[in-house]
Amino acid sequence: MQKPAITAVPVHDLIQERWSPRAFNGAPISKETLAKLFEAARWASSRFNSQPWRFIVASNDDADAFEKLASCLFDGNYVWASKSSAIVAVIASLKGKPDADPNPAFMYDVGLAVGQMVLEATANGLAVHQMAGIDRGKIKERFNVPDDHAIICCLAIGEMGEAANLSETLQEREAAPRVRKPLSEFVFSGDWNQAADL
Amino acid sequence: MQKPAITAVPVHDLIQERWSPRAFNGAPISKETLAKLFEAARWASSRFNSQPWRFIVASNDDADAFEKLASCLFDGNYVWASKSSAIVAVIASLKGKPDADPNPAFMYDVGLAVGQMVLEATANGLAVHQMAGIDRGKIKERFNVPDDHAIICCLAIGEMGEAANLSETLQEREAAPRVRKPLSEFVFSGDWNQAADL
Repeated sequence: MQKPAITAVPVHDLIQERWSPRAFNGAPISKETLAKLFEAARWASSRFNSQPWRFIVASNDDADAFEKLASCLFDGNYVWASKSSAIVAVIASLKGKPDADPNPAFMYDVGLAVGQMVLEATANGLAVHQMAGIDRGKIKERFNVPDDHAIICCLAIGEMGEAANLSETLQEREAAPRVRKPLSEFVFSGDWNQAADL
Repeated sequence: MQKPAITAVPVHDLIQERWSPRAFNGAPISKETLAKLFEAARWASSRFNSQPWRFIVASNDDADAFEKLASCLFDGNYVWASKSSAIVAVIASLKGKPDADPNPAFMYDVGLAVGQMVLEATANGLAVHQMAGIDRGKIKERFNVPDDHAIICCLAIGEMGEAANLSETLQEREAAPRVRKPLSEFVFSGDWNQAADL
């Protein structure tokens, strides 16, 4: 199943095709392909080139290692994400962050890196679904994540599968139209809330 | 000037070519192309589809509007970024963020969106240089950014230009090799600091 974005103006294929499905077919991802995804993240820009992104990866070719991370997902995510081929915990290093810094740019920089990773996945025929519904305390404890790191989310990665294998509720979600605010609501020029003339 | 990433494994061209130059040629960017950049951001994923990204854009085809935003950059950035074709302020809406939420995912989501925007720019022959060195108070005041929004950074966008037009110091920076940590320092498996076998 594909569900390309219905864009108002044309964008690059990778961006149009990127979508967060819940149906995965579980086909194994080679180490070479996984390395490409992290290499894509690696070359993102970051403030002062601090590269605050950290990842914990578990592939379904090692059932125990996969379950160790997958079972940190909340049940509503586990039910479908445990059928994906790899789970990745996305973590930000807070080291070097000035105490008084009101701008948690480290989280933003990790977003830039995962943005590249997701498009690299798309280029390799893989889909990524990001999940905020995770047990951060469990991940921290099981994987010994240091205190000066923030666990942001987990990614389910794999080839898209058949929606028919999902529950009825999830099938409905999978088929729901993709919606976004129009540009006029978030691209301004000259003053706040003054829509840019694009 | 191009400065592609020297990647350890091949990644998609757009990701390899993405680079943050300081030399821009100032060629105007059409409204159609600017719209593509924001459309690319628009279709990023975000937690609960909250789409917390907001942008203020100023193109150099309107000198006063451009200067209004460009003059909010710190001097070290203004000197080169004022030669770019468009400046964009990147802002996160904090609305809907639970007070007790230890996870500022809104910043991360804005990073995902700008990650897509930057690669769309690359696909259109444009480069983007992100700048944390900006006067956030000035941007907030001049553009009436509401209190429940965080100003993250500014982007300088344009076609790459000749490094020879930069100061000697900036020319050296422009020519410096691009460096990143190896995957073994940020991709773990099984336990913290245990490099994934990729």
